[in-house]
Amino acid sequence: MTGNSIGDSFKVTSFGESHGKCIGVVVDGCPAGLKLSEEMIQRELDRRKPVQEIFSTSRSEEDRVEILSGVFNGYTTGAPICMVIWNKEFDSTSYERIKFVPRPGHADYTAYIKYGGFNDYRGGGRFSGRITAGFVMAGAVAKRILKLLNIEVLAYTLEIGGIRMKQMDLNEIREHVEKSPVRCPDLEASEKILEMIENVKIEGDSLGGVIECLALNVPAGLGMPVFDTLEGDISKALYAIPAVKGVEFGRGFNVAKLRGSENNDQYTIEDGKVVTITNNSGGILGGISSGMPILCRVAIKPPSSISKEQYSIDLVKMEKRTLVVEGKHDVCIVPRAVPVVESMVAIVLADHAMKAGIVPKVVKDVIE
Amino acid sequence: MTGNSIGDSFKVTSFGESHGKCIGVVVDGCPAGLKLSEEMIQRELDRRKPVQEIFSTSRSEEDRVEILSGVFNGYTTGAPICMVIWNKEFDSTSYERIKFVPRPGHADYTAYIKYGGFNDYRGGGRFSGRITAGFVMAGAVAKRILKLLNIEVLAYTLEIGGIRMKQMDLNEIREHVEKSPVRCPDLEASEKILEMIENVKIEGDSLGGVIECLALNVPAGLGMPVFDTLEGDISKALYAIPAVKGVEFGRGFNVAKLRGSENNDQYTIEDGKVVTITNNSGGILGGISSGMPILCRVAIKPPSSISKEQYSIDLVKMEKRTLVVEGKHDVCIVPRAVPVVESMVAIVLADHAMKAGIVPKVVKDVIE
Amino acid sequence: MTGNSIGDSFKVTSFGESHGKCIGVVVDGCPAGLKLSEEMIQRELDRRKPVQEIFSTSRSEEDRVEILSGVFNGYTTGAPICMVIWNKEFDSTSYERIKFVPRPGHADYTAYIKYGGFNDYRGGGRFSGRITAGFVMAGAVAKRILKLLNIEVLAYTLEIGGIRMKQMDLNEIREHVEKSPVRCPDLEASEKILEMIENVKIEGDSLGGVIECLALNVPAGLGMPVFDTLEGDISKALYAIPAVKGVEFGRGFNVAKLRGSENNDQYTIEDGKVVTITNNSGGILGGISSGMPILCRVAIKPPSSISKEQYSIDLVKMEKRTLVVEGKHDVCIVPRAVPVVESMVAIVLADHAMKAGIVPKVVKDVIE
Amino acid sequence: MTGNSIGDSFKVTSFGESHGKCIGVVVDGCPAGLKLSEEMIQRELDRRKPVQEIFSTSRSEEDRVEILSGVFNGYTTGAPICMVIWNKEFDSTSYERIKFVPRPGHADYTAYIKYGGFNDYRGGGRFSGRITAGFVMAGAVAKRILKLLNIEVLAYTLEIGGIRMKQMDLNEIREHVEKSPVRCPDLEASEKILEMIENVKIEGDSLGGVIECLALNVPAGLGMPVFDTLEGDISKALYAIPAVKGVEFGRGFNVAKLRGSENNDQYTIEDGKVVTITNNSGGILGGISSGMPILCRVAIKPPSSISKEQYSIDLVKMEKRTLVVEGKHDVCIVPRAVPVVESMVAIVLADHAMKAGIVPKVVKDVIE
Repeated sequence: MTGNSIGDSFKVTSFGESHGKCIGVVVDGCPAGLKLSEEMIQRELDRRKPVQEIFSTSRSEEDRVEILSGVFNGYTTGAPICMVIWNKEFDSTSYERIKFVPRPGHADYTAYIKYGGFNDYRGGGRFSGRITAGFVMAGAVAKRILKLLNIEVLAYTLEIGGIRMKQMDLNEIREHVEKSPVRCPDLEASEKILEMIENVKIEGDSLGGVIECLALNVPAGLGMPVFDTLEGDISKALYAIPAVKGVEFGRGFNVAKLRGSENNDQYTIEDGKVVTITNNSGGILGGISSGMPILCRVAIKPPSSISKEQYSIDLVKMEKRTLVVEGKHDVCIVPRAVPVVESMVAIVLADHAMKAGIVPKVVKDVIE
Repeated sequence: MTGNSIGDSFKVTSFGESHGKCIGVVVDGCPAGLKLSEEMIQRELDRRKPVQEIFSTSRSEEDRVEILSGVFNGYTTGAPICMVIWNKEFDSTSYERIKFVPRPGHADYTAYIKYGGFNDYRGGGRFSGRITAGFVMAGAVAKRILKLLNIEVLAYTLEIGGIRMKQMDLNEIREHVEKSPVRCPDLEASEKILEMIENVKIEGDSLGGVIECLALNVPAGLGMPVFDTLEGDISKALYAIPAVKGVEFGRGFNVAKLRGSENNDQYTIEDGKVVTITNNSGGILGGISSGMPILCRVAIKPPSSISKEQYSIDLVKMEKRTLVVEGKHDVCIVPRAVPVVESMVAIVLADHAMKAGIVPKVVKDVIE
Repeated sequence: MTGNSIGDSFKVTSFGESHGKCIGVVVDGCPAGLKLSEEMIQRELDRRKPVQEIFSTSRSEEDRVEILSGVFNGYTTGAPICMVIWNKEFDSTSYERIKFVPRPGHADYTAYIKYGGFNDYRGGGRFSGRITAGFVMAGAVAKRILKLLNIEVLAYTLEIGGIRMKQMDLNEIREHVEKSPVRCPDLEASEKILEMIENVKIEGDSLGGVIECLALNVPAGLGMPVFDTLEGDISKALYAIPAVKGVEFGRGFNVAKLRGSENNDQYTIEDGKVVTITNNSGGILGGISSGMPILCRVAIKPPSSISKEQYSIDLVKMEKRTLVVEGKHDVCIVPRAVPVVESMVAIVLADHAMKAGIVPKVVKDVIE
Repeated sequence: MTGNSIGDSFKVTSFGESHGKCIGVVVDGCPAGLKLSEEMIQRELDRRKPVQEIFSTSRSEEDRVEILSGVFNGYTTGAPICMVIWNKEFDSTSYERIKFVPRPGHADYTAYIKYGGFNDYRGGGRFSGRITAGFVMAGAVAKRILKLLNIEVLAYTLEIGGIRMKQMDLNEIREHVEKSPVRCPDLEASEKILEMIENVKIEGDSLGGVIECLALNVPAGLGMPVFDTLEGDISKALYAIPAVKGVEFGRGFNVAKLRGSENNDQYTIEDGKVVTITNNSGGILGGISSGMPILCRVAIKPPSSISKEQYSIDLVKMEKRTLVVEGKHDVCIVPRAVPVVESMVAIVLADHAMKAGIVPKVVKDVIE
């Protein structure tokens, strides 16, 4: 209940600050015998990089993971795995100037109130998007566990700035997603999004979007009703990503307009297996996985840091003032958030898989 | 991690089954000295009743709460509060007939898989909407705690079957909501919804909708980032309500279409207090309450029990078959879910208020 | 963190008061498919009865368990199991008279301070030994789970009032323990203890003792270092029994006087299995079970309710006064505490067995 | 439930291995605004050093703490505090030679079974006494919090190898304890202990002992019955110290020989405050602090690493063999364990103080 840990059987504890010494994470509960290396983690971490110089900060983050504990001779030991990224020296002077002037949309004001002004405000401190690098490191471990179960987590950009991808089948999506600099598998839409990003960058403004995430081959039976439902735990995990403002499953908010006869997923048998003809539920019934693909969508708000002048206040003088947030800003973080969404979903599924007893406590890992 | 408890400092443990002996709840962590009676709980519980004969089951549920522990001489003692509703005898024969035939949209199939067929399937067992009566009992206690802090939680029907209420101000909403049999404060929309419900009832089908929920006077500073965010915990709690498929805060999924300059809530000072000019964030920044009203919306799917024939399978014979779900069904549970949504939000806020240390451990309760 | 729940994967939540409506417990996390009946629970509960009229309260407690949820057709469903004992009407008038005069040795004073006087003081309320009836109900479920693994938990009176049982082998202990009205398998010592109890009863005083508890056939590998050690979790569980003031494992406090060469348990191979030649560690190394019998001892203080005059104070008048605790008192609760100690150890072992993944989530229970 | 975290409101997560890169700890839940520096932590850490060359390993550990997060401008920020000690290069060759030969008394065998041989066995890995350096770092933070409440935790050597300190009053103890190289405040006993240590060192054997720990000025009302009792949580925390085999409170195991009339702590009023005439309960009644000093005793086994030949087995060949544990060994760890015992008690008290709501969430720290 101290806020910086998530998961019961696969527990992730986050620490570190944007402009502090490091961003780190402790993963406790990982089975012993899992093959794990810094390279494996790094591969995931690299996906969180700003995708193209064009629409991102020019700050080139060469984040390198270092494993501090829990791995021995290339395998997990069953002990807690601590991983860190050492921060480069950041210039925090611009933050000093506005430390009593909360940036609209950011957590500056709420953090100031909650921590009485003692919080590390440089670069947003604990509230920086940079914290999600830790989530990705933990997510990389979770994905290794899911791989043992043949579970795949796949996210992609569904929509940015109102431009939405067309309906595509799974194989197409999988094939195209990493070809798009904005991780939108519909390459035509991807082009349009890039163009929009460029324009909005010039305006000094920013763009939101929607990420869709699939989890495939999740066996039926994961989830712990009535409170630790799969939807509930996935949602909660996703809200740890700073920009998330909505999460929905299956048909999501559209269910409000459907009749029961349209929304119910009717059963049939396919290849001797029970399946549903549709998957409006997003693979979850009663908080428990049904064996159908888990499907969720995540609303990502436009980055709060924009170059336009905004109204704010001075918290010490209690005076109104205006503010222009300095520096180069991400116009849109949706593409970078894609691997973070995957990570959060993977962390929850790994936790639930372990709780369901389908992950061995000692793994004989042979997957590469 | 066993699934049936929620909350850290204000912990709710649910038990009971739809057609078992009772529906119950244990509330642990409630401060001592809070005035509490069965009448107070009952008042909330009565709000969960089917609102009008017209669109609901004719099964008249006279659910009476009994407090089994934790209250002495009219005040809470600091000990766990166990509350139950004793179930009437239900006729479960129709459930016996289909115990191996999962009803589409219900949790029958996932429960069968997870519990190996040992689950109590009568009336949906643990997965029945009836379980939420326990949430309302716990929510009534939570609301008492929030009242000490002057916090009000107010939910209402925003939309049913595509009919959406007009924009209204807070006072109007508060005044009209309980006048509408479907808890839609826009009484014109309410009329149309009633009509639609009647029609859909004749068709033997069902209707979904959206509930909006406000929490007013929540002080800035509640929420425990990075994982136990207010959005995350509220979402998770809401997904315990069987029919929820989406949760969003503030502008929610609409943020995807907004620019940063439109979405950022800029600051100003009003009556010597820091406020934001807009409240697109829904009163939460960085997972922490900002002092502005907390605003969320919840997508409620149409009830799965419909009178139309549907495809299903026989899990024992592994054969396809059709199924007509017998009995009288709720056409739309949105109005009944309104107090349940309020309860879940109240439970989370009470928990966070206690974690934030703003609720005394011993209350001198004088509020009526 | 609200205090009334214990266990992670097998979670026990206690509620109820000594003179309230009931004593109850919710067991969450029990696998589905376990055969369970009120008779099975009752059998354990009966062992907690005052053993002989001679040394106990004359209050004849006919505690009958009622299962309220979680069991269907004679098997657990995977849903939380709520069990209660309905209290008889107790005469609480003597407690009314001394409600501001804390009884020495009882929790009256600390409860008064903690709960601001709102606690139910009748019969000790939550702090009564009667609360342990709930532990025994939960322990009975835990023992069912352990039986699947062939684990046996066996406790007995090692010492009362300074009279200690002789060294005996396991079979003798198992055979004789229930023959002794004070649960001391050394029947000669048992006789002497009975005599002493009779004498101390006449004096209006009370007696303490030591309970020894064995857990047999516990497989190597249970326990979650570094904090959730088997010793740590067993100790913590045992301190929930009101009278416990010390817990030790294996040689316990005697290790202080041993050399390493005497205390180390050296290894050998027996019937192809790794065993230790001695078992000074009490079957636990590094917080993890070694496969040798787990052995702990529990110090039980003499009951605080005695007929002798004692010094106390009036908390309202803040005046010194004397007090004679009225009513008939247990001279010694050690024999009654034996099944409670077994229950707490069983609860912890069931929890750890489930965490270790060696209990199936769905049991095909055939044991009688 | 993953084992490496303890505490609810003040949560400590341990990581690192004896011969890995580091020993570390994350402290989550610490209030913001607490003055904290590496020097403050280091001071406590230095107390864990081998006290005298004579009876300790010659391995001179110059453990330097580094704070990685959670402290900004000399004050805690409310964010998780990660602290590490970077390990020197250790020679692990002797461990390689015996990696399949469990050292008697150590956790080698149980760890091998639990983690399938994947555990880091070098220097005992996670089971090394070195892990307790992390506990001391966390304990140093806890002590800072307790200082705000004027709570003092004071431990000392009560007994080593059968030599027990005489009865002394608190001021004497406080004054003398750090003058004794073995932390025994009875300096005559201290001399005898030193002599015994020297002799036992020559024999290649080791010595156990008992540590006594006091917590002073703990306000009445801490503790969360019925399960999260103060005794239970303190015990559990102490069993994380590798050598602990028994914990008792107040009169501890001696209560077994006392009558109720001797053991009950009768009440009186002193300086307008409620106190007990004796303190046999060790300052805890019903699991809740009474305002009297908390007193516990901890049995510490003799170090398992001795120079004498011992029986063991080869786990791979499944053959009996003998073993001489190489290297220089601590003859007795009791003196080094004194600050570790203090740390564990401080961690639990800080956690309970925070749960009781008596620690502000934002501290205006002025203590030096």
